[in-house]
Parts: sequence; C-alpha cells; structure tokens
Amino acid sequence: MAETSSIQAPALEDVKLAAARVSSRVHQTPVMTCEGLDRIAGAELFFKCENLQKVGAFKARGATNAVFSLSEEAAQRGVATHSSGNHAAALAWAARERGIVAHVVMPTSSPRIKRIAVEGYGAEITDCEPTLMAREAALEEVVARTGATFIHPYDNPEVVAGQGTAALELHAEIDRLQIVVTPLGGGGLLSGTAIATAGLAGHVEVIGAEPEIADDAYRSLRAGVLLPSDDSMTVADGLRTALSPMTFGVLRRFGVRVLTASEEGIIEAMRMIWERAKIVVEPSAAVTLAIVLANPAEFQGRRIGLILSGGNVDFDHLPW
Amino acid sequence: MAETSSIQAPALEDVKLAAARVSSRVHQTPVMTCEGLDRIAGAELFFKCENLQKVGAFKARGATNAVFSLSEEAAQRGVATHSSGNHAAALAWAARERGIVAHVVMPTSSPRIKRIAVEGYGAEITDCEPTLMAREAALEEVVARTGATFIHPYDNPEVVAGQGTAALELHAEIDRLQIVVTPLGGGGLLSGTAIATAGLAGHVEVIGAEPEIADDAYRSLRAGVLLPSDDSMTVADGLRTALSPMTFGVLRRFGVRVLTASEEGIIEAMRMIWERAKIVVEPSAAVTLAIVLANPAEFQGRRIGLILSGGNVDFDHLPW
Repeated sequence: MAETSSIQAPALEDVKLAAARVSSRVHQTPVMTCEGLDRIAGAELFFKCENLQKVGAFKARGATNAVFSLSEEAAQRGVATHSSGNHAAALAWAARERGIVAHVVMPTSSPRIKRIAVEGYGAEITDCEPTLMAREAALEEVVARTGATFIHPYDNPEVVAGQGTAALELHAEIDRLQIVVTPLGGGGLLSGTAIATAGLAGHVEVIGAEPEIADDAYRSLRAGVLLPSDDSMTVADGLRTALSPMTFGVLRRFGVRVLTASEEGIIEAMRMIWERAKIVVEPSAAVTLAIVLANPAEFQGRRIGLILSGGNVDFDHLPW
Repeated sequence: MAETSSIQAPALEDVKLAAARVSSRVHQTPVMTCEGLDRIAGAELFFKCENLQKVGAFKARGATNAVFSLSEEAAQRGVATHSSGNHAAALAWAARERGIVAHVVMPTSSPRIKRIAVEGYGAEITDCEPTLMAREAALEEVVARTGATFIHPYDNPEVVAGQGTAALELHAEIDRLQIVVTPLGGGGLLSGTAIATAGLAGHVEVIGAEPEIADDAYRSLRAGVLLPSDDSMTVADGLRTALSPMTFGVLRRFGVRVLTASEEGIIEAMRMIWERAKIVVEPSAAVTLAIVLANPAEFQGRRIGLILSGGNVDFDHLPW
C-alpha cells in the first residue's frame, strides 16, 4: 500500500475555517467531568461529549464541513458515500440541512436500525451485496449516474478539518490539558485532533485509543508502513476501519502515539461511563477511558481530555 | 388516615434558604434540550438533569439541606433513616460531607447493589426483616440508642425545601415555561416544586407524574382524603411510596394535578430518553416524559420543564 497520500491533509487554518462553517450548524457539545471516574482513574478527566452531537456522533462535524464546502453547482448534484455507520447518517443529515440529496450505498446485511436512521434523514439508499467490491462498484455507478460528490468517511481533507473542530472547542474551554485521547478507527477524528492540538496547544500530547484486536494503526505506526486492517469484529464497531494514506501521514507527522485496549476493558469502561457519568456512549467512545484505565503509569495524576465520539447504541444488544 | 399534618410545610423562603445552604455542596445540574424528543412530543421540552446530581438523584438536595440544618449538637449524634433507595444513599453522602454518622435501616432483602452504594458513602447499616413493622422497630431502636435525628425521605420540611431548589434553578435558567412536570412518589420533589413555582412563576402549572398502577396520589387528590398506597410493583421503583399528610396538604393547597402513565409508556419513555437524549435516567424519571406523550391534548405546543429525578439503574436488569 502507498505510504504517502495524493490527498493533501488539512492544516490548522482549515480546521479554523471548518469551525466558522459548522459552528452554527452543529452543537458546541458540553465538556463533562465526573468525580467518580476521576477517582477511579486517579486523574482529571474532561469528557468532550460528542455523543450529544447532532446525529449522536462527531461525524456531523466532518460531514457538515464537507457538504457546506461544495460549490453551489457541485452541491446540486448531491453527495454520496458507502457506510452503514455514523458517517452515513451524518452525511444524510448534513445534506438535508443544505437541501441536497445524499446517496448512501449500504450492504443488504446492514442492521435494520441503521438503515432506518439513514432513511430517516432522507437519504437515497442503494443496496449492494455485502462485499467490498460490490460496495465500490455500486458507489461508482451512483457517482457516474448522478454526478454526486463522493465524501469519504475520513480520507477527505474537509472531513478531517471538520472533525478537528471538536478539539478546537475542547482547548478553548479547558486549559492546562496535558493529554488528549480520541478513539482511532480510520483516523479522521484523531488526525483532526492532532492538527488542531499541535497548532493551538503544542505541549499537549495526542494519543489514539484503538481496540487491541483491531490494532492496524498501532502496528502500522510501529512498522512505518501502512498495514491493512484485520477485518476484526471488535465490539467497538466504529473502529473496524483502517487508516488511509492521508491519515497515516498525519499521525506520523505529528508523532501521535497509539495505545490499545482489550475487549473486556472497552466494555467495562463503557459501562462505567453509563453508571458513573450517566451518559450513553457507544463502545468506540469508551475505548478512550479504557486505555486510560489500562495504563495508569501513563495517565495517573494527569489532566486529560477524552473525546467521547458517539452515543449510538443498540439497546437490545448491550455488550455486557 | 389523617388528612392534615402536624408537620409544617416549608414556604418559598425556606426553599431559598435551602438553596443558599446547598448550592455550594450539590451540583447546579444542566438543563438539556433534545430536538428529537421535541419533535416526538410536539412540544418544547426542558429537562432538568438531576440524574447528573450528586449520588445520581435529586435526593442529594433534600438530604443536604436536612443534614446541614441540624444544630452542631444534634449533628454530632448523627442522622438515621430507613430506605433502600436514593434517599439512603443521599443521606449517607450528605452526612459524610458534614463529617457525621448516618444510620440506615435496610431490609435484608435489599438488592446487594444498593447496599454497596450506601456502604460506599460510609453509612452504618442496620439490617431488619423486610416488613414495615420490623423496619420501624429497627429505626426506633437505632434512634433511641444513638440519639440520631430521623430524616424522613419526604415527610420532613427541610427535605421538601431542599428538593424545591431544583425548580428554583430551573425557573432561574428557563423563562416562559408553561408547565413543570415532576415524578410523584411520596411527594417531596413535587411539593418542593409546587412551593417554588407558585412563589416564583405563579402562572406556571405544576403537574405530578405517577405510575398508573401506583396511583394513590391521583386517587387521594380525587377523593380529597389521603388513601394508602397499593404496594404496587411498578417499574418506577422510586415511586412506590405514598404521600404523607404534609405532602398531600401541599399538593391540595397549590392545586397540583396528577396524570398517570402505563408501565409500557414509562419503559418506552425511558428508552427514548436514553436513545435520543443520550443520557441515563431511571424509570421513575421517565414517568415525566411518559405522561407528556400519553396526553398530547394537554402538552402539545407547550413549553414544559421536566425534572429528571435520577439515573441510578441496574444495567444487568433493564426493563426492555
């Protein structure tokens, strides 16, 4: 796989432009603290609550920035993506906010609940067989037929710049942070966070939190080459994707470190956040607290920002 | 049963004194809004998040006011109560904050998880058989032996005044409310809310939300006499208690209306709050939204405050 990307990563200036573009359209989410969790972690934890974001996930930021960056002419042809997760819902929602069409290619195997969410935001769904090839072919067909702009969930500079606005808000609200932790799947949120943090609070370390059984980013950064993902079935279903050449490049450039969490640790951290902080987060969001609890030597006594990426959970199938 | 109480109900002034006493000790909880729930209800909903309160429930307010109202001499002899719910945890917590002992009489049948919570706040637990007689006998024995002050969960003016501080904050933050809804069990929160609202925002209607299968307050207010509770096993376990003569008197005096919700409605509303607002609330808290959804003619188009009373839930036994 290519180690350098043909897609130009955004800079701090792009994150600031994104903030100007999206701030009236998405929530400035609250930063919560919880004494019980501080006590357990032996640290000061500041939770940036993107579970309370539009569509229940930070993905609303990147999708909004991408959709509202389009020229009027491009916008009229619509946007398209293949995803069955939060990005598809976010893109559908952002497109509706601009009054344009979103095409979402979705495998026939997608959970009904996700399909309903995307349909609920008014997207056109195109079914495909549940294989990567079928998905890409279906997307190509949609784009060729409609002229829609493909908005990749993370291998897209406007998306990454939009995701970085969460860290922008976090640094504006909480000073003297020493570490910022975000979940790590495709690397869009982590890249945006690294770009924003390096520019605004250069002394703050940025750490990616990845499931141990989906540790392609951890291994890629160690190896210095972009390794494929393992098709892992981690409970943190938002983090099953692999880095793109662009996001890999950003993480390397900013010296971002990755720590991993066990499946048990993720589930325990998720439940702890529900029980102690009384907020609903999805497993992917809880990976941040899981690595903090699993690595006391790294985190105890520190002042830590954790981006809780989302809160979309199937309450009929809780992991405990 | 007596219809008039020998216990003097608090006035607005007492609620204000309580606010001065507790405001530095408990959280000024956020008021949340949720577009998805507004759309479903066809109304503007303002959720006062007492699930994010200390010990996870509004009970911290009343317990703190009661504990910090005691003279130094009385305080040194400690406080006592019989409860296995949020009041016991709140009293234990508040006593620890003042550095005094709390005695909690608890039936041997109490869930282990509740016992651990109360012990965790440092209370002395006295076991008793799971009958009302055994409970009262055990409490009398503890009070006689220690000289501790009995703090009733709601038949106590300092407790009611403390609970009223949630509505005080709600009215200070959100203007032009037309209705305030609170859960209704023993009537402490509802009484405090009625007293605060009548004094500060007299045009705002106060409505109590009660489970249909534990509707003793609804029936008592209709009959004009205090009727006993049915020993109901409603899923809203915080609302199984009956009014006291004092709280009954307050609800009558302020013309508080009561609406009831079905068990299915309560569970559905609870899940809706988790799914849409991404916060964890206990069934008792969800009764507020349940009556709003069940009575569109009363609530549609209105601007409504709902006090979400608590968020203490056993995640191993969710009601859906």
